[in-house]
Amino acid sequence: LQKKNMAKSLALLTTFALLSLTTVRASDPDLVSDFSVPDGVDPAKLDGVFFTYTGLRGGAPASTNGIGYKSVTIKDFPALNGMGISMELLKFAPGAVNVPHTHPRGAEVLFVVDGSLTVGTVDGNGKLYKNMLQKGDVFVFPKGLPHYQANFDKTNKAVTVSAYGSSIADYVDLPKNLFGSSIPDEVLTKAFKMSADTIQQLRTAQN
Amino acid sequence: LQKKNMAKSLALLTTFALLSLTTVRASDPDLVSDFSVPDGVDPAKLDGVFFTYTGLRGGAPASTNGIGYKSVTIKDFPALNGMGISMELLKFAPGAVNVPHTHPRGAEVLFVVDGSLTVGTVDGNGKLYKNMLQKGDVFVFPKGLPHYQANFDKTNKAVTVSAYGSSIADYVDLPKNLFGSSIPDEVLTKAFKMSADTIQQLRTAQN
Amino acid sequence: LQKKNMAKSLALLTTFALLSLTTVRASDPDLVSDFSVPDGVDPAKLDGVFFTYTGLRGGAPASTNGIGYKSVTIKDFPALNGMGISMELLKFAPGAVNVPHTHPRGAEVLFVVDGSLTVGTVDGNGKLYKNMLQKGDVFVFPKGLPHYQANFDKTNKAVTVSAYGSSIADYVDLPKNLFGSSIPDEVLTKAFKMSADTIQQLRTAQN
Amino acid sequence: LQKKNMAKSLALLTTFALLSLTTVRASDPDLVSDFSVPDGVDPAKLDGVFFTYTGLRGGAPASTNGIGYKSVTIKDFPALNGMGISMELLKFAPGAVNVPHTHPRGAEVLFVVDGSLTVGTVDGNGKLYKNMLQKGDVFVFPKGLPHYQANFDKTNKAVTVSAYGSSIADYVDLPKNLFGSSIPDEVLTKAFKMSADTIQQLRTAQN
Amino acid sequence: LQKKNMAKSLALLTTFALLSLTTVRASDPDLVSDFSVPDGVDPAKLDGVFFTYTGLRGGAPASTNGIGYKSVTIKDFPALNGMGISMELLKFAPGAVNVPHTHPRGAEVLFVVDGSLTVGTVDGNGKLYKNMLQKGDVFVFPKGLPHYQANFDKTNKAVTVSAYGSSIADYVDLPKNLFGSSIPDEVLTKAFKMSADTIQQLRTAQN
Amino acid sequence: LQKKNMAKSLALLTTFALLSLTTVRASDPDLVSDFSVPDGVDPAKLDGVFFTYTGLRGGAPASTNGIGYKSVTIKDFPALNGMGISMELLKFAPGAVNVPHTHPRGAEVLFVVDGSLTVGTVDGNGKLYKNMLQKGDVFVFPKGLPHYQANFDKTNKAVTVSAYGSSIADYVDLPKNLFGSSIPDEVLTKAFKMSADTIQQLRTAQN
Repeated sequence: LQKKNMAKSLALLTTFALLSLTTVRASDPDLVSDFSVPDGVDPAKLDGVFFTYTGLRGGAPASTNGIGYKSVTIKDFPALNGMGISMELLKFAPGAVNVPHTHPRGAEVLFVVDGSLTVGTVDGNGKLYKNMLQKGDVFVFPKGLPHYQANFDKTNKAVTVSAYGSSIADYVDLPKNLFGSSIPDEVLTKAFKMSADTIQQLRTAQN
Repeated sequence: LQKKNMAKSLALLTTFALLSLTTVRASDPDLVSDFSVPDGVDPAKLDGVFFTYTGLRGGAPASTNGIGYKSVTIKDFPALNGMGISMELLKFAPGAVNVPHTHPRGAEVLFVVDGSLTVGTVDGNGKLYKNMLQKGDVFVFPKGLPHYQANFDKTNKAVTVSAYGSSIADYVDLPKNLFGSSIPDEVLTKAFKMSADTIQQLRTAQN
Repeated sequence: LQKKNMAKSLALLTTFALLSLTTVRASDPDLVSDFSVPDGVDPAKLDGVFFTYTGLRGGAPASTNGIGYKSVTIKDFPALNGMGISMELLKFAPGAVNVPHTHPRGAEVLFVVDGSLTVGTVDGNGKLYKNMLQKGDVFVFPKGLPHYQANFDKTNKAVTVSAYGSSIADYVDLPKNLFGSSIPDEVLTKAFKMSADTIQQLRTAQN
Repeated sequence: LQKKNMAKSLALLTTFALLSLTTVRASDPDLVSDFSVPDGVDPAKLDGVFFTYTGLRGGAPASTNGIGYKSVTIKDFPALNGMGISMELLKFAPGAVNVPHTHPRGAEVLFVVDGSLTVGTVDGNGKLYKNMLQKGDVFVFPKGLPHYQANFDKTNKAVTVSAYGSSIADYVDLPKNLFGSSIPDEVLTKAFKMSADTIQQLRTAQN
Repeated sequence: LQKKNMAKSLALLTTFALLSLTTVRASDPDLVSDFSVPDGVDPAKLDGVFFTYTGLRGGAPASTNGIGYKSVTIKDFPALNGMGISMELLKFAPGAVNVPHTHPRGAEVLFVVDGSLTVGTVDGNGKLYKNMLQKGDVFVFPKGLPHYQANFDKTNKAVTVSAYGSSIADYVDLPKNLFGSSIPDEVLTKAFKMSADTIQQLRTAQN
Repeated sequence: LQKKNMAKSLALLTTFALLSLTTVRASDPDLVSDFSVPDGVDPAKLDGVFFTYTGLRGGAPASTNGIGYKSVTIKDFPALNGMGISMELLKFAPGAVNVPHTHPRGAEVLFVVDGSLTVGTVDGNGKLYKNMLQKGDVFVFPKGLPHYQANFDKTNKAVTVSAYGSSIADYVDLPKNLFGSSIPDEVLTKAFKMSADTIQQLRTAQN
């Protein structure tokens, strides 16, 4: 019995080690195979289900802050491995704001499925490029540039589908990244030219 | 006057040469600028409109063969230059089939906005991976592999939004590419192991 | 004894897991080492044999359908890992046809070592680019575009050496991919605008 | 005379068009030549001066806000074209802070030439990775992640040399990008959960 | 007349400027078109001839130093633009040596069409990997590593076809690069630990 | 006890296998994570120390041949994994020469921190591009081209910081690679057009 347990624990160890290896595999490159079979999966048993993600059937989930979203990245959908692309479904309640953020690893192309949306992106010179999108409009946010989306309609929700040029483009929430992390006071007061009190208020708001 | 005309024609020549150069610029690489300003455009005059594509407002256009589609590639939407991503809106009438095709330059991630859809892709070993998608499902077609979509519902249309991992992934319609081009009879009869008569019928159907 | 067996089976499990990991490693990128030492190989024992592939010494093998070929990819020749290039030797009997196919992961440059060869490739607009090659000619097939080769000489064989811009460019046999897989009848009849009977004949020919 | 002028103006037009083309050329790819000769330069006249940048001889310039810096990118040093790398020299007065910023197009490796430096970077989960660097230390800031540097020493300056994995990695000053651009009040008040008054103060500080 | 001449000269200027632009275009990236149409060429007039290179019909040319070769790069064969691959035909007289050299921009895969060949490559640790190849053998030389080929057979020539993972991989002849260029004496005497006299002999031999 | 030992040895086996896998992982690609956590490291325990390399605090080490250097590559500093960049600190004693060498995997940007330096690089045509650098100058050595640096000042040392466009660009010492390896005499005598005696002297000097 003990031996079986040990065998099991070693197998688990192996599996864990391999999984941890997988999670750190760092590339978004072209494949040298038609697609990438996950570790431990028998290629012969793969069928169309492997290439299908069903987690968006119910639409984007509800959310307390007015933004419901569901990302479809390599983490949720292993068939995206090496495909260099991912998706996201977003639902904006009236008045909801997707705060300024960046995607370090891919440009974003956003399509307005329903409603209208105010969007903007700021380039390296600090110039804002903004627009008011209608249903059916497409907007592209260049890789790495800060941008936001907001539904300023007071009665109708907005729904969008976004695609990213990476199997996992990441999401850096700038207010949280700046004020919700523990960047020292001296840095933030100098950077934002505000009193320690105001910085503290900004911190409190993000925690 | 003549000099002005000559100046104009030379300017046109220059513009034409530059445009032809632009059309053959062949890369889908990372940018070394925040985005790519088209030749002849004054960066100072760019605003959010440049990053917006409005050609999908009316939805996918109607089509005689049951498939209405509108691609949003670098050709239609210059802001996609260097972004490594593009989009397409498709509308399938009941019974409509998007014939087997490939995209040589990018994987496709398809999202079912409305209706249901039968999809499949065949790998290099000739194995078919197919599925029946519901509204909200996502399917990924690996780069370069033949695939198809079909709306087998007899009463309801299907609507999809696809994203591609290239600013212009190309569309190779396989029936048309094989039988609508002038590939010699000897090649097609041997390849499909059919009589010249059957090959001729297949050709006629694609022309 | 049992313990030894368990140890052995765990070691096998580990090895198997690592091998399966290797087979799904999906990139064709630049190396961060001079070359890639396969798992389990002691770099100190590597010599020039590792960089040599001898499987083409006998030329391309004979084949019942008139095409003898031998690919030299990363599967056959591990030293190609990360080199972004592979090779293939082909021998065409008189009348032999290499059926329309694509290589999803690399352009092909073909060199006619012996004999003459009819070749063609079709672009995304359905336009055919064909030529009759003599001994010594080189032809380039762009990545992902359908193409064919045929030896229409009635008495002499043709021999070619091809190189591909990937360590394994893949081969998608289009007749087999379309009619030898189980793509549904409804798709194929609509795609090729043929009766179910003709489609069935096309299927039978590929199985 | 007039003809000469016209000729000159057309030549200028051509040159301008080509230069504008050059400025929008968007790639940071491998070269297909040993190096890239700028338009209009005769390769035969190039010598070692072309590969040399002398603009850092005087060190980093002084600056009113305490940070003196000089970037060496493809804009200043055309020989970097296609090299995928650039440099920057920074001088921090006592107390100086390089405000939170991102480089959308390259990781940064910083080397402390003189003095000591407090640095930190925040990942996509909002976790801060910070350290106090001594003279001789090296720190790496991953591509696209917000980060800062500060010289908290009260008497000594700090000097650093940074290298970036792009010929022009860009610099997105986050306080200025967020509050110095014209992102609408509704977005900023919701994003930072602050009153319009506080947002206005933050704006004023960045303008 | 003069105006026509001026127009012509301006057109030439434009063409020249564009051509010079072409020669400095520095990328070997994926295409965003099926292939790359050269500047000034009407795509509608392209046919299979564009994809064909006939300069190897006569085999590799004779050469006084025993090595006849003909490269097929983007310079000779514009259809290779963006294909990431090139070729070369080499003929080795008995005793001929292809001196140690590197290809900075691509790995090389060499196929022995006729005869036998001694080859070797040295890695970054100074370890030599060598072999004696027979007709039909394939050898891979990793990107950037010094290597050589030699036909030590006293009576038979050797013929090879090589492919490179770049549309123009470059050839750095190391003896000539080191001793045929004007690297200062002080560098060479220290580097090779030889007297100035011996260095001078080595220089003379390469000029 | 024995079981524990076996468990331990299997765990070691697994760890070893994974580590060997890591050492052969060959890519320098973009990450699909903010950074790359090494195998066996708990991401939750990572802090700023992981992104810091302290091995240069004492400056470049002394060296008998006059060149003291310390490389900061992915081997020394795992946080560089996937960052596409590395660094090196060099100290040149008066008269010291960094012998002609190449970096097969990245361009080099060199910054003169102290002293003066004579540098040169030779292109594929054998043309030398050289210069005499002062403190503060920057020089770029294109990827794969042979180059050297030398401190011809008789009294002052020179100190440089170099950055490379790869997490490990490699160093191919050309004199040692050519004459310190066992390239056959027949190759070297023909390549350098020297007697076997002179070649033997060159060999002896490199061993």
